[in-house]
Amino acid sequence: MTFRRQHLLGLEDLSRNEILHILDTARSFRQVLERPVKKVPSLRGVTVCLAFYEASTRTRLSFELAAKRLSADTMNFSSSGSSVQKGETLLDTIKNIQAMKVDMVVIRHSSSGAAHYLSRNVDAHVINAGDGFHEHPTQGLLDLYTMRDRFGNLDGVRVAIVGDIAHSRVARSNIWGLVKLGAEVTLVGPQTLMPAEIAKTGVKRVTNCLEEALETCQVVNVLRLQLERMTSGYLPSLREYARIFGVDTRRMEKAADKIMVMHPGPMNRGVEIDPAVADGPNSVILDQVTNGVAVRMAVLFLVWGGAPASEMGSEIALHK
Amino acid sequence: MTFRRQHLLGLEDLSRNEILHILDTARSFRQVLERPVKKVPSLRGVTVCLAFYEASTRTRLSFELAAKRLSADTMNFSSSGSSVQKGETLLDTIKNIQAMKVDMVVIRHSSSGAAHYLSRNVDAHVINAGDGFHEHPTQGLLDLYTMRDRFGNLDGVRVAIVGDIAHSRVARSNIWGLVKLGAEVTLVGPQTLMPAEIAKTGVKRVTNCLEEALETCQVVNVLRLQLERMTSGYLPSLREYARIFGVDTRRMEKAADKIMVMHPGPMNRGVEIDPAVADGPNSVILDQVTNGVAVRMAVLFLVWGGAPASEMGSEIALHK
Amino acid sequence: MTFRRQHLLGLEDLSRNEILHILDTARSFRQVLERPVKKVPSLRGVTVCLAFYEASTRTRLSFELAAKRLSADTMNFSSSGSSVQKGETLLDTIKNIQAMKVDMVVIRHSSSGAAHYLSRNVDAHVINAGDGFHEHPTQGLLDLYTMRDRFGNLDGVRVAIVGDIAHSRVARSNIWGLVKLGAEVTLVGPQTLMPAEIAKTGVKRVTNCLEEALETCQVVNVLRLQLERMTSGYLPSLREYARIFGVDTRRMEKAADKIMVMHPGPMNRGVEIDPAVADGPNSVILDQVTNGVAVRMAVLFLVWGGAPASEMGSEIALHK
Repeated sequence: MTFRRQHLLGLEDLSRNEILHILDTARSFRQVLERPVKKVPSLRGVTVCLAFYEASTRTRLSFELAAKRLSADTMNFSSSGSSVQKGETLLDTIKNIQAMKVDMVVIRHSSSGAAHYLSRNVDAHVINAGDGFHEHPTQGLLDLYTMRDRFGNLDGVRVAIVGDIAHSRVARSNIWGLVKLGAEVTLVGPQTLMPAEIAKTGVKRVTNCLEEALETCQVVNVLRLQLERMTSGYLPSLREYARIFGVDTRRMEKAADKIMVMHPGPMNRGVEIDPAVADGPNSVILDQVTNGVAVRMAVLFLVWGGAPASEMGSEIALHK
Repeated sequence: MTFRRQHLLGLEDLSRNEILHILDTARSFRQVLERPVKKVPSLRGVTVCLAFYEASTRTRLSFELAAKRLSADTMNFSSSGSSVQKGETLLDTIKNIQAMKVDMVVIRHSSSGAAHYLSRNVDAHVINAGDGFHEHPTQGLLDLYTMRDRFGNLDGVRVAIVGDIAHSRVARSNIWGLVKLGAEVTLVGPQTLMPAEIAKTGVKRVTNCLEEALETCQVVNVLRLQLERMTSGYLPSLREYARIFGVDTRRMEKAADKIMVMHPGPMNRGVEIDPAVADGPNSVILDQVTNGVAVRMAVLFLVWGGAPASEMGSEIALHK
Repeated sequence: MTFRRQHLLGLEDLSRNEILHILDTARSFRQVLERPVKKVPSLRGVTVCLAFYEASTRTRLSFELAAKRLSADTMNFSSSGSSVQKGETLLDTIKNIQAMKVDMVVIRHSSSGAAHYLSRNVDAHVINAGDGFHEHPTQGLLDLYTMRDRFGNLDGVRVAIVGDIAHSRVARSNIWGLVKLGAEVTLVGPQTLMPAEIAKTGVKRVTNCLEEALETCQVVNVLRLQLERMTSGYLPSLREYARIFGVDTRRMEKAADKIMVMHPGPMNRGVEIDPAVADGPNSVILDQVTNGVAVRMAVLFLVWGGAPASEMGSEIALHK
């Protein structure tokens, strides 16, 4: 199979096979990360611009690392101290970057649809690193990768996603991906924070009872509580939220054995997740981070037009 | 011809032949930018520090790309979050960077003369990326490149520059370069925003009638309106400015056929230039951006002591 | 001798022999800096993350240059615009960076002990680039390097350190290193700014008479006056401080002949040091900066597990 997408905008757009192809490709790159020299020459001479219009550490660093490990050149650009402040439009800024013959643009933006909009208006390859409440596809992919690493096949795997689903691009990308790969998704959270269009997503179950979800699911993906949302009246107090939706040791006692605990980070320890759980034996939170680099290498590689996954092993093996 | 300058400070200092030599060299690098692998090893092992004391996206990225495409190492440093805030003088900061054996310093600074001052006090190669109201020589060179690309020879070519000439380093570098290459320059703008020393520059004509300039010129270079200048009483309201000096479709109808429309960016769409004109068939605005990378590669290469343009083609051709 | 430390946390932890080993290794790298191509492939494929939680220009650039000259990949991350603002703990942030398979973390932090804390909790190599009032070991090492370059052997060399000793990590690292190498250390400054635990450090003499120290010492290391400390009541006015503890030309007349003047930068010219002294014949301030790159190359190289100094010359010589 050849990957024919010029961009990676969201998991809603991808077929089951395309998602599996990215995950298979990521597996090869995951092995590269265990080598003493974690670098392949696949994107030598390619320039990747990291255009982050929202603050980010882990996603930006993860993409930067992924690009450098493919031997690409990287350039950072954030909205502070830049032409953004001078009132230039997003499209003008990115068209300028493209005119400099930059090959790929990784964009994070607070507006839902920013990446789609760019992809329709520029020739460079566009990778969505998070757009508003819409999608965060590489987070979705790395979560899928991490679950697949455990279960092999996600058909029928029971996954709970806990938190502010309505405002979470992480949740949205997870849902699209999980449903396509056959998992059974349960959404857990306050009724006020459930998306309106749940029916369309293929989600199996919606509940506000965390205990019940933990007892029946094999994976619990705990969303970061966006603290700035507290003030807007969507949520009760922090303490109240933690009491009802916090994944803590007491609740974990009644959870399914070996339940896998995930979190996209950065964590609010003691709010949506208890430190003992975050650092406990069920947590795969740091594995997610490692897998994230491999998944992003795969995305950059495939979107650029890399060889099919089956042939890639030997290609990578050639280089050290 | 060999380029013997250690620094690039401004176009006022350069001879006609030196300017032509840079532009010829840039043409070779412009071809490199069309290759699949847009990289040459010319500055391998050379370190370029990008010291930006003023906010910038496009110029900083363009220089960074130019340096990386010559295989130089780059280091970014901006005035925020740095020793600048701790009260260190410009000269101490740059002397420190030089003491680290950095080879070239690309500097943008709000003080006119900053680059000249540095060049007299440090050994590193200094490239002026814009100093106060004084010069922005690589912008001037990329504008010249873009015009020469169309007209071959600039002798007698009629160029209008529109806007706040007095406070524009872009205008100043353009004027020096255009006059040296034989172009006939018309300045268009409010009387209050004309430089005092016009007579000395060799400019052909000064007018506040944009229509007349558009009818008679082959090129119109529209300056960015520095919005912060509005408050200082130099300019009428935005709407008033746009009405009198905005390049819009109505005015373009009466303009010379095939008139070339330029803008250094970032644009205030709807103020000094209308979106339909900026994105229209006469616009070469994005070509300017692409040419900018090639021109900056040429400047870094020549200031570093690169081979003459005539020999360079083969040298570049050697590498992939 | 083989260097067996996984981290560089402070000079207090190191033996005399370990310090000498780093300085000897730095000497080889110092020669690399004089070559036309100042680069060796020693850390090719290694990734160094520069995590600066405090503003810095020179130290960050110096480490970045050192890493690049060893052919490592570098990634910058500062506390602004990052997950730090989102309330993530230091340990979570660094564990995430480590999970991305970053090999080395260079950390600057306002909390004393931050680097030690990390080293006990992560697997990556940790280099302390300054932690609170505690240590700044690479500054200490580069100061030792610079003195050793002059005196060969520091046994019995008389060194005065002038300023706010109590709050200076630079002073602390210098004291540990100097005492271990046999130098005789004099501390000069207001009584209120002397550390409580001087007796334990092996310092020879404490005085508030700068003249006396200058007359008898062979080296004077002038600390930067942290201006923000003025407000806290520790210090008199700037003018008062300059009058009593400023190293100026009048005082230098009575100083020992050829006394070496050092300053870690950034300087407050006219406060703790007079411009005529900073730029005068006794100053080695810019040599310190150059030596800093070599020392940091040595530290990165040795902590990573580089070959012993004796063998390294040939290894470096092999590469260009």
